[in-house]
Amino acid sequence: MAGNSFGQAFRITTAGESHGGGNVVIIDGVPPGIPLSEADLQVDLDRRRPGQSPIVTQRDEPDVPEILSGVFEGRTTGTSLAILIRNRDQRSRDYSDIKDKYRPGHADFSFDAKYGIRDYRGGGRSSARETAVRVAAGAVAKKLLQRELGSRVVGYVVQVGSVRARIEAPEQITLEQVERLPDGSPNWVRCPDPDAARQMVQAIEEVRKAGDSIGGVVEVAATGVPAGLGEPVFDKIKADLGKALLSLPAVMGVEYGIGFGCALLRGSECNDIFVPADRPGPGGGPAITTQTNRHGGMLGGITTGMPIILRAAVKPTSSLPIEQPTVTTDGQPTTIKTRGRHDPCLLPRIVPVAEAMVAIVLADHWLRWKAQCGTMSLPKRREG
Amino acid sequence: MAGNSFGQAFRITTAGESHGGGNVVIIDGVPPGIPLSEADLQVDLDRRRPGQSPIVTQRDEPDVPEILSGVFEGRTTGTSLAILIRNRDQRSRDYSDIKDKYRPGHADFSFDAKYGIRDYRGGGRSSARETAVRVAAGAVAKKLLQRELGSRVVGYVVQVGSVRARIEAPEQITLEQVERLPDGSPNWVRCPDPDAARQMVQAIEEVRKAGDSIGGVVEVAATGVPAGLGEPVFDKIKADLGKALLSLPAVMGVEYGIGFGCALLRGSECNDIFVPADRPGPGGGPAITTQTNRHGGMLGGITTGMPIILRAAVKPTSSLPIEQPTVTTDGQPTTIKTRGRHDPCLLPRIVPVAEAMVAIVLADHWLRWKAQCGTMSLPKRREG
Amino acid sequence: MAGNSFGQAFRITTAGESHGGGNVVIIDGVPPGIPLSEADLQVDLDRRRPGQSPIVTQRDEPDVPEILSGVFEGRTTGTSLAILIRNRDQRSRDYSDIKDKYRPGHADFSFDAKYGIRDYRGGGRSSARETAVRVAAGAVAKKLLQRELGSRVVGYVVQVGSVRARIEAPEQITLEQVERLPDGSPNWVRCPDPDAARQMVQAIEEVRKAGDSIGGVVEVAATGVPAGLGEPVFDKIKADLGKALLSLPAVMGVEYGIGFGCALLRGSECNDIFVPADRPGPGGGPAITTQTNRHGGMLGGITTGMPIILRAAVKPTSSLPIEQPTVTTDGQPTTIKTRGRHDPCLLPRIVPVAEAMVAIVLADHWLRWKAQCGTMSLPKRREG
Amino acid sequence: MAGNSFGQAFRITTAGESHGGGNVVIIDGVPPGIPLSEADLQVDLDRRRPGQSPIVTQRDEPDVPEILSGVFEGRTTGTSLAILIRNRDQRSRDYSDIKDKYRPGHADFSFDAKYGIRDYRGGGRSSARETAVRVAAGAVAKKLLQRELGSRVVGYVVQVGSVRARIEAPEQITLEQVERLPDGSPNWVRCPDPDAARQMVQAIEEVRKAGDSIGGVVEVAATGVPAGLGEPVFDKIKADLGKALLSLPAVMGVEYGIGFGCALLRGSECNDIFVPADRPGPGGGPAITTQTNRHGGMLGGITTGMPIILRAAVKPTSSLPIEQPTVTTDGQPTTIKTRGRHDPCLLPRIVPVAEAMVAIVLADHWLRWKAQCGTMSLPKRREG
Repeated sequence: MAGNSFGQAFRITTAGESHGGGNVVIIDGVPPGIPLSEADLQVDLDRRRPGQSPIVTQRDEPDVPEILSGVFEGRTTGTSLAILIRNRDQRSRDYSDIKDKYRPGHADFSFDAKYGIRDYRGGGRSSARETAVRVAAGAVAKKLLQRELGSRVVGYVVQVGSVRARIEAPEQITLEQVERLPDGSPNWVRCPDPDAARQMVQAIEEVRKAGDSIGGVVEVAATGVPAGLGEPVFDKIKADLGKALLSLPAVMGVEYGIGFGCALLRGSECNDIFVPADRPGPGGGPAITTQTNRHGGMLGGITTGMPIILRAAVKPTSSLPIEQPTVTTDGQPTTIKTRGRHDPCLLPRIVPVAEAMVAIVLADHWLRWKAQCGTMSLPKRREG
Repeated sequence: MAGNSFGQAFRITTAGESHGGGNVVIIDGVPPGIPLSEADLQVDLDRRRPGQSPIVTQRDEPDVPEILSGVFEGRTTGTSLAILIRNRDQRSRDYSDIKDKYRPGHADFSFDAKYGIRDYRGGGRSSARETAVRVAAGAVAKKLLQRELGSRVVGYVVQVGSVRARIEAPEQITLEQVERLPDGSPNWVRCPDPDAARQMVQAIEEVRKAGDSIGGVVEVAATGVPAGLGEPVFDKIKADLGKALLSLPAVMGVEYGIGFGCALLRGSECNDIFVPADRPGPGGGPAITTQTNRHGGMLGGITTGMPIILRAAVKPTSSLPIEQPTVTTDGQPTTIKTRGRHDPCLLPRIVPVAEAMVAIVLADHWLRWKAQCGTMSLPKRREG
Repeated sequence: MAGNSFGQAFRITTAGESHGGGNVVIIDGVPPGIPLSEADLQVDLDRRRPGQSPIVTQRDEPDVPEILSGVFEGRTTGTSLAILIRNRDQRSRDYSDIKDKYRPGHADFSFDAKYGIRDYRGGGRSSARETAVRVAAGAVAKKLLQRELGSRVVGYVVQVGSVRARIEAPEQITLEQVERLPDGSPNWVRCPDPDAARQMVQAIEEVRKAGDSIGGVVEVAATGVPAGLGEPVFDKIKADLGKALLSLPAVMGVEYGIGFGCALLRGSECNDIFVPADRPGPGGGPAITTQTNRHGGMLGGITTGMPIILRAAVKPTSSLPIEQPTVTTDGQPTTIKTRGRHDPCLLPRIVPVAEAMVAIVLADHWLRWKAQCGTMSLPKRREG
Repeated sequence: MAGNSFGQAFRITTAGESHGGGNVVIIDGVPPGIPLSEADLQVDLDRRRPGQSPIVTQRDEPDVPEILSGVFEGRTTGTSLAILIRNRDQRSRDYSDIKDKYRPGHADFSFDAKYGIRDYRGGGRSSARETAVRVAAGAVAKKLLQRELGSRVVGYVVQVGSVRARIEAPEQITLEQVERLPDGSPNWVRCPDPDAARQMVQAIEEVRKAGDSIGGVVEVAATGVPAGLGEPVFDKIKADLGKALLSLPAVMGVEYGIGFGCALLRGSECNDIFVPADRPGPGGGPAITTQTNRHGGMLGGITTGMPIILRAAVKPTSSLPIEQPTVTTDGQPTTIKTRGRHDPCLLPRIVPVAEAMVAIVLADHWLRWKAQCGTMSLPKRREG
C-alpha cells in the first residue's frame, strides 16, 4: 500500500535512504537453484556507481552488496533473498540549506505535504540512491531470464538534449557496444552510436561547465522473450513496463514501439503485418512473426515474440550549482544553490537502472505465465 | 496475479468479453455514505457509448448499468459494489474469418500464444468493450473525489493525425467545452479547441471513407488535487497514472507535464520555481505553489497541488475494412478484411475511459493517504 | 484492502448481499482449457442450498448460477471468470425490527460501528448468502485440482452439540458417504458415521422445536495433494487454510491434524515418524511418508503428501425465534424475536462451503508452486 | 506470492535464516511522526531472546536490532522502515546429520519436496529465528496502536501439558503479571496464574530432564480496540488474526472467544446480549456493549469494542535430544538425535511473538479503517 514493493510473483520490496544505515531489497519468489553470488550483482552496480567516469557525479559510493539470505552454497534456495548495500559516503556536512528551503524540481515540498516530516539529508527516500538496490534485484531477474528463457535486456542512451543517436536495429545492440566505443575506450554516455556518443559527451560537459544539467532519452530492448507473457487487461505488459520506468526518478514519459509517433499514422501504416517465420520464434511459438516491429513486441498487452522496445524521457538533473529562486519551508522567497556533487546528466547512470526494471517486469510475468498457463509438460506449440 | 484487478484501497476487479453474458466490475473500498445510482454512471457511459455520433462505430450497445450490490437506499454501504453491463448487440454472424486468421494489430496471435485457446468473437477479453465497466467504476471514483476533495478530472483530445489543438490552460477546460462546441452543437471529437475540432472531424471522415483509421493524443487534467498524494518509490503517482493509461487498449505512450519535451531542456529551463501562493493550496497545504507547471503536478512521485496533466498516444484502430495481408493460425499467408462496424478513430470515445482511469488512481491514492497519513480521532458513528 | 478478495494466483473477488440484484464472484487466474459449465457448479450449490432437507432453513433459493465470462465453447479461456447468482426469495416483509435493533450474535452492531450505515435486510453483506458464490468458485477449484493433481476435497460433520462422530480414517471418507446413509437415504446432516448422524438429526430437531439452535464441528480432508505446496513463513498453507475457514460466518476456531490436542502431548508422542513408503507419494515425491498423521499433512507450513485434515468449530445460529434481550440502535433496552426461516444448525450446509474454501487455497498454492518452483519439465523427484 | 509479506496497509516483509547474514524486516505503511528507537524494539526482543531463563534454550543470541531506514531524528518518516538483526551465534558445527536426514516434526522433508534444495543449517528459513523480526515489527505496531488508539496487546501462557491456568478476566492481565511473579521474581513461563506458573515450570523441567518436550496454549488479549475494525467477508479480523497466529511455527490451532466450546452450546447460551453501556465504548461508539464476551470481541468479522481474546495451541518442540527413528533423504531408515540447544517448551518465548502478530493485524486494520471509513478534512501539514 505504501508502495515500496513491486511485482507479484517476482516481487521486490525496498527500504533505505541517501543517508542512514543503507539500502536493502527483499526479493520474493526467486526460483530455487539459480547460481548467485555478490559478484553477479556487482557488475551492474558498477555501471550505476557514482564516480565511474568524468561525466557523472564524483561522489564515492563503492556500492558493495551483501546477500543476507536466500542463497546457500552458491545457489538460491527459493526463500526470500535480502541484499544490503551500506551507505558509505556520508560526509558530515551542513544541511541547513536543504532543511529550510524547497529545492526546485525535487520532492522536498511534496514530501512535506504528504508526511509533515522529511529526512532532508540528500533527499532521503526520494534520493536516486534507492535505485542501487533495484539494480541488484534486476541482476537477479536477468539471471533468471537468461537461464530459463535465454532472454537478454540491454539499455542505452538514444538522446541527450538535441543530440539523437541513429539506431538501426535496437535488438542487435550488445552490452559491449553500450559499454565500449569501437576503439575500446569506455563509452561514458552509453550510447551505441559512436558519433552521437561523442556529441553527447560534449553536450554534457558543456552544461556541467555552465553549472546546469541536461535531459535525454533512454531506450531498452529485450530480446528472446517468448510470445504469450503479459495479462489481458490491467496488467498488460506494456502497462507494467510503463509503470516500472515511470517509477524511476526523473522519468517524465514512456513509450514503446513507435510510441507517440502512432498519433500521426493511419491504421494501414501502423499495423505490423503477420508473416510466416522461417523458424519458430524465440519463445518456441508458432512459426509466425511480424514484418515490422512498430508494436514494440507487445499486442493486446501480451508479448508477440518480437523484441520489446521501450523508451523513457529523462528530465535534466534538478540540483544545480547555480543559484535558483525558491521559497523557504515557511513560504518566504529565497534562493538556493545546490552544493555537493551531482550528475550533469542522469542518462549514463540510468541505463542499468532502466534495464533492471524491465528485467524485473519480464521475470515477474514469466513466473506469472507459469502459474496460470504452465503445464507440467508444455503445450506443443510452446515447446522450446 | 492474472491482472484483472487495479488499485489497492480503491480497487476494481473486472470480467467480461465482447460477447457472452456481459461485463461486470466489483469495486472494493468505496467509502460508505456516498449517494449513488445507476443514473450517475450513465452519464459517462453515454460518452463512451458506440453510436453516439457519426464519427464513431455505429454498433448499438445501450450500455445500461445495473448496480447489483453495495448501495442501499441510494447510498454506498462500504461493502463491495458490483456493476453489471449486459451485452446486447450480439448479432449472430460468421466468425470463421477471425477464428482462423490473425488480425494485424490485434491480440489474436498473442492470446493464442499465451492461453492456447481464444474467444475469437469480437476479440473476446481483448475487446475494448471491457472499458465500459472501467467507465462505470470511474464515475464512482469521480463522485468520491468531488465529494471528499472537490477534485475534478477532465479529458479531451489534443491531436488527431497531424491536427494539433491549441490548449492554453489545460486546467481551465470544462466538461461543457469538451462536450459542446461554442455554437451548442455536440463536440463529436471532444477537442476543446473548436478550430482543431473541426479539422479533426474532417480528418476522421477522410480516413473512414478510405477504409482506414487514424491515431491521436488524449490529454487529461485533474484539478483540485491536494498536495501529498502518491508514494515515494514504486507507486509514484506518475507511475500509477502511467500504468492506468497504458493499460488501455491502443495506448502506445504516456507522458506528464512537459513529457518527452524534457529531453531537450536544461535543468534551469525545466525546473518549476517555487513561489509564495496568495492563498493556501487546494489541499490546505502551505501557501506555496510553482510559477509554472512543467512538472505536471507531480514531484518525486507525489502531487504538489498544481494541476495534474497527462497525455496518452493512441494508435489508429487496427481493424480495417480494407484488405490486409496476414497469416492463418497455422502460419499460412492469407488476407483479412475486417467486417463489422469499427471506429475510424478511437480518440473521441477514449476520453471518458482515460478520465475514469485517472480518477480511479486519484481515488485510490487519496484513500491510501488517509490510511497512512490521515490523523483523526477514534472512529465514531457517522450520521447519514 | 476492503477484503472482498481471497487468494493470489487463484483469486476470487465477491460482491453481493442477502437482498438486491444478486451475488457475483470473479475468479482470476483460472488456467485455460478446463471444461466447465453451469452444471458443474450446480452440484455443490445444491448441497449448500436452503430447503434441501427438513433440518435446514426452508427458504426457497434455487441458487442457479450464470457464467458471465471466461468460458468459451465449454472451456475456460484463462480470462477472468464471472459467475452471477441472482437473489430470488426476496419476499417483501417488514424489516423495521431489524432496522432499529441489534440482533445478538450478528454483525448489525459492528457494521454500524464500522460504516455508520447498514443494509439491514437479511443481514446485508454479513448474510451467509455470500457463501453461495464461494461454493461456485470452489467447484472451479475442485475441477482444477482433480484435473491437474488428482486431488480430492471432502468435508463432513464430526460433531453437533455433544454428539461426536467416530471417524477412523478421514482420508477414506467418500462424498457418497457424506451425502447418503448406508440405506441410500439422504444423509441430511452430512456425518459419515451413521449412528452419530442419526443422533445429530435428533439433536437438531430438538433445538428447532425449542426455538433454539446448536453448534458443532466440521472436518475437511484433502487427499492426493502433492508434497511441497505452501510457503515457508506467513503464507504457510496451514495459515491460509485457517484464514479460509475462519473467514466463514460462525466459525470460532480452526485446528489441523491433532490440533489443540497437541498441548497435552510430549514431543516424542507428537512427532510423526518418517518411514520409507512402498510407492511414491501422491505428489510423486520421494518414497517417504509418515507413519501417522498427527501433523495433518503439513510441516513447516508446507504439505508433506499426507492427507490434509482440518476442523472448524461452528457456533449455533444466532438468529432465534425465541425472544432475546437486546438494545435498539439508540442503546435502549428492548427484546427481539427473529422472524423468518433460519437453520437450527449451520453444520449440514456449511460442509460444501468449507470444502470450497479448502479447495480454493489448495488451487491457489498449486498455481503458486508452479510460478516459483515449476520447471518446464518437472524435477525428477516430482515426476507424476 | 512467495509469502514473505504480511498485512496490507501496515505491511511487513521479511527475509533471513537461522544462519547467514541475519534477519531483516521491511515495514511499509508506518505513519509518520511516531517516536521510535532501537531501544523500543529491544524490550520485546529480550522477551523472545534465547537464554533468558533456565527453562528456555541456552543459545546465545543477543538479538540487537539496527534500524536501517525510515526513522529520522527519532521519529518515523513514513517511508519504509527496515530493521536488521544480525545472526551472532553461528558456531561452526557439523551439520552432516541434518543434511542427510529428515528431522521428525520439522520442515526438512517438505522444504526438499517444495524447492529441491534446502539450507539445512539450523532449519534455514523454517527456523523460528525468523520470528525475531516479527517481534521487532510488532513493537512498532504496538507503539502505533498505543499512540493512536490507546490499545494494548498482552499475551500469556494458559496451558502447558495438562496444567491449565485459571484466568478470570483476560482483559485485566498486565504485562507486569506476565513478566513477574507476585514475589517480584521473573515469571519464566509467562503465566499470570502464579500457582499454574509454578506447576508449568515443573512440567517443563521434567520433560527437559527426560530429553523430551511439551506443548501448551498461549492466549492473547487486546484491549482498547475500537468497534468497527475488520472487513466483512474474507478479511474478517478473526480470519486475519487466525492466519497471523497459524503462520507461527508450531501453532496447530487457533480459536477466539469461547472457541471450540461453541460446538457444545445452544444459540441461547452462546449469544452475548447487547446492553446499554454506562459510557461510550473505547472507540467512541454508541453507549452499547455486551454483557458477556463469548464472541471474543468480534462479530461478523468486525470488532465490537469488547476485548479481543484469542488462543493458539502450540505443539511440543520437535527437536529432541533423545533418539528418534526417521529416514535419510534417500528414504533409508535411520535414527536421529538432535544435537544443539533447544527449548523444551516453546510457550514462554512464543508469548511476545503472538503479541506481535496480533498487534500487526490490529495496526493493519486500523489503517485500513482510516482509508475507507475515516473522514477528515483535506490533508494539511502536521506539526512535529
